[in-house]
Amino acid sequence: MAPTARIDLNADLAEGFGRWELGDDEALLGIVSSANVACGFHAGDPSVLRRACTGAAERGVAVGAQVGYRDLPGFGRRFIDVAPEDLVNDVLYQIGALSAFARVAGTEVTYVKPHGALYNAIVQHREQASALVEAILRYAPNLAVLGLPGSQWLTLAESAGLRCYREAFADRAYTPEGTLVSRRESGAVLDDPQVIAQRCLRLVRGEPIEAIDGSPITVEAESICVHGDSAGAVAIARAVRDALTADGITIAPFTRPDGQE
Amino acid sequence: MAPTARIDLNADLAEGFGRWELGDDEALLGIVSSANVACGFHAGDPSVLRRACTGAAERGVAVGAQVGYRDLPGFGRRFIDVAPEDLVNDVLYQIGALSAFARVAGTEVTYVKPHGALYNAIVQHREQASALVEAILRYAPNLAVLGLPGSQWLTLAESAGLRCYREAFADRAYTPEGTLVSRRESGAVLDDPQVIAQRCLRLVRGEPIEAIDGSPITVEAESICVHGDSAGAVAIARAVRDALTADGITIAPFTRPDGQE
Amino acid sequence: MAPTARIDLNADLAEGFGRWELGDDEALLGIVSSANVACGFHAGDPSVLRRACTGAAERGVAVGAQVGYRDLPGFGRRFIDVAPEDLVNDVLYQIGALSAFARVAGTEVTYVKPHGALYNAIVQHREQASALVEAILRYAPNLAVLGLPGSQWLTLAESAGLRCYREAFADRAYTPEGTLVSRRESGAVLDDPQVIAQRCLRLVRGEPIEAIDGSPITVEAESICVHGDSAGAVAIARAVRDALTADGITIAPFTRPDGQE
Amino acid sequence: MAPTARIDLNADLAEGFGRWELGDDEALLGIVSSANVACGFHAGDPSVLRRACTGAAERGVAVGAQVGYRDLPGFGRRFIDVAPEDLVNDVLYQIGALSAFARVAGTEVTYVKPHGALYNAIVQHREQASALVEAILRYAPNLAVLGLPGSQWLTLAESAGLRCYREAFADRAYTPEGTLVSRRESGAVLDDPQVIAQRCLRLVRGEPIEAIDGSPITVEAESICVHGDSAGAVAIARAVRDALTADGITIAPFTRPDGQE
Repeated sequence: MAPTARIDLNADLAEGFGRWELGDDEALLGIVSSANVACGFHAGDPSVLRRACTGAAERGVAVGAQVGYRDLPGFGRRFIDVAPEDLVNDVLYQIGALSAFARVAGTEVTYVKPHGALYNAIVQHREQASALVEAILRYAPNLAVLGLPGSQWLTLAESAGLRCYREAFADRAYTPEGTLVSRRESGAVLDDPQVIAQRCLRLVRGEPIEAIDGSPITVEAESICVHGDSAGAVAIARAVRDALTADGITIAPFTRPDGQE
Repeated sequence: MAPTARIDLNADLAEGFGRWELGDDEALLGIVSSANVACGFHAGDPSVLRRACTGAAERGVAVGAQVGYRDLPGFGRRFIDVAPEDLVNDVLYQIGALSAFARVAGTEVTYVKPHGALYNAIVQHREQASALVEAILRYAPNLAVLGLPGSQWLTLAESAGLRCYREAFADRAYTPEGTLVSRRESGAVLDDPQVIAQRCLRLVRGEPIEAIDGSPITVEAESICVHGDSAGAVAIARAVRDALTADGITIAPFTRPDGQE
Repeated sequence: MAPTARIDLNADLAEGFGRWELGDDEALLGIVSSANVACGFHAGDPSVLRRACTGAAERGVAVGAQVGYRDLPGFGRRFIDVAPEDLVNDVLYQIGALSAFARVAGTEVTYVKPHGALYNAIVQHREQASALVEAILRYAPNLAVLGLPGSQWLTLAESAGLRCYREAFADRAYTPEGTLVSRRESGAVLDDPQVIAQRCLRLVRGEPIEAIDGSPITVEAESICVHGDSAGAVAIARAVRDALTADGITIAPFTRPDGQE
Repeated sequence: MAPTARIDLNADLAEGFGRWELGDDEALLGIVSSANVACGFHAGDPSVLRRACTGAAERGVAVGAQVGYRDLPGFGRRFIDVAPEDLVNDVLYQIGALSAFARVAGTEVTYVKPHGALYNAIVQHREQASALVEAILRYAPNLAVLGLPGSQWLTLAESAGLRCYREAFADRAYTPEGTLVSRRESGAVLDDPQVIAQRCLRLVRGEPIEAIDGSPITVEAESICVHGDSAGAVAIARAVRDALTADGITIAPFTRPDGQE
């Protein structure tokens, strides 16, 4: 089999808080190979984090720190103009907290994927992107980073010598230039499980997929992001996994490129 | 010199939050040998924690996790009936977060001292005391614990095989039985720096001090707790240190009993 | 029709927060006559409160302040040893905040029903119960109070001259003495909609219901509490309403005893 | 005496939180005529709000709602990209909460002055400025607004028919165009009490003051903002008041233009 016949599937986990549940972590842990575990700033209380880390460890799913702005009421989806020097520390705090649960579960945090408005901000916001890179460099330069191809976040992380991985989005339309179509435009989000699964299959095989205008584009990525915050989302994620594995593609953490556990 | 001629001085640090400052961390770091660093649940934002850990590392002051109830408005001073299984995770979260800053500063968290209402609760509250012990056992059984002699916290920690250390309070009156006089009673808190310093000196020498009724009692402790949240408190802490060092007593972290750095 | 042939149905609303939803407010507003609207301390962000008040106003449902401990991570379900003088102010803050949304919706806050651990605490905790009464006396002595028969909360409120109303629980078993069976005991919570509806019918008619040991007891109440935090709970609430209205019983806010709107 | 010989002095109050104190509210209440009372989102717990409202009522100081972003760790000083429809509700919540304490103190909230990053944002940010105006229109169109001359906030509030008042800053340098010199530039903040007091005197008399380049400018304002968050700030505020009153100028709330209490 060709060495490219493998891919990572990642999803957000541990996004409940106290009495409030969100997403089906149990189902996702049976589908993905990498779990972006919330760290308590945008979602996730300590008991939720513990459970997610334990579940991930039991199933060999890689644990990543899904760091976000400190904004529970906004679920980390609102840009906050945090001073970069404070953002460095906010990120350190979150990675450290999550690491405790990974350690207790017998695993470790192996990568960082920012959440929500922070994820979007650091596509362009050089100072905040740089703050994230600095946090990782200071804490553990062996942590991998997962992000949007072409983002400041990946560019700066690569310059700093960090291991960088790109992700594609299973259920999002792409522009002819290979960027994501804004959610505000119609057709931005796909919802047919089979259509989505077939796109993912082409993507992993290195074949072109259709951009929103019908033109063919090639998207390169080491991981595909799926969702689990609704019954429909879980069905899509499962369809993606099934299509990939039926095609002989190995689903494994991008952080273990040589296949070791 | 006799082997008992050494003691640890500990104080609470990193108890500011955002715009709000509290205590003179800079001054305290020049006085104490162990810093109980707040972890963000009762006080301490990530930037404050970073600064405290960096300062402690620079001066060879040991870093302890001052874990507390999740209660910023109450500064961790109000009992909260947290379920023990959640408290385990709240404590893991805090220790993990602080550990990131200790690591970045080139040091590590070496002990745990609970804060405020949690400190008081686990003198008697067996379930919450047990939750703290469990958190440490799961995360790092080599962490030392610091607490009130005779508390459930020390008793259970000792049974679990953790390294336990006792603390005395420089500015508190004791009952003839060797327990603390309640703050609600008159005479419970001492405020004369020289009187306090002399009591500490006797305590370290193993000599009896005066209980509130004038009777002599012997208090055994590996650490003395001082405060820094007012100018007067810092003056007292300095007087204690000066009296001890003038007497040839070594002030060093209780977590380094053999004197190694 | 006999003057007793009317009852109030109350339920908790507005218990989501940001991204997190909880309960089916829309469905409940079609069932109950009084809405205990969360005020942001244990649940409920401003936009959730606004929506609940608007919906209640549109349907003629009375708005009550469901005040709680300041504890989002614990959903107000953990006792907090708040100083009574602070609790007075915490309650004032919550009633005031909710009043803004009631006012904007063209209605007003007409009663107070504490939530969760606070509700339970003030059955016995005289100081906290007294703090709630003081808050109401200072803010608006015309606010009614809703509570558990026999609680300190109702006793003190009545002594203070407040208008007091008692509630029964549709889905809870009672002891032969007329108190609630603890949730920790088996049989404490009923789940058959028809059984529950028939109990409510007997209760409103002034007929005895069966205590957990089979003995007959009479429960007096001006309001019956139903829930809406699961599909099953909504079905029960609807069954209760249907049984009552089919029997000719008027369902109307206890705060409008003379039937005026 | 000419009818212009009166001015309002305003300052931020109630900016402590729990254990943390900030500013000398007691001193300020003896100096200013209008108190911008924090509402709990950027600072101010319920007990702090209560105290500030009580003190203001006792001294005849007008109470304004100092509404801010929901950001305790950032003290409301970081721009947050809140959706305007949520900002409307965040502002309603804050005004409502503060109103409870004003009411209990026997006074009322008479104006709104946004805080920190929100204050700065709505100089230009039309959607957020509009959200604030909408909140006031819905809650109480008789509330006055206080803001920076030329801001979107004042422009939109005026168009909506709200009573608008302009403020000048006692300790800030102005550009020749009459806008504030950015704090990042040298000379932006004045610190000599006598210089500041004299500027305020000229400003109230309608005389030109010196812009940062030495050119004369005229600043029109119904209120002057002073600070109280340091001993130096209080001394400046007092010097301003003393210079004004020594000159026969009446210091009175801008919200009571006809001088009634």
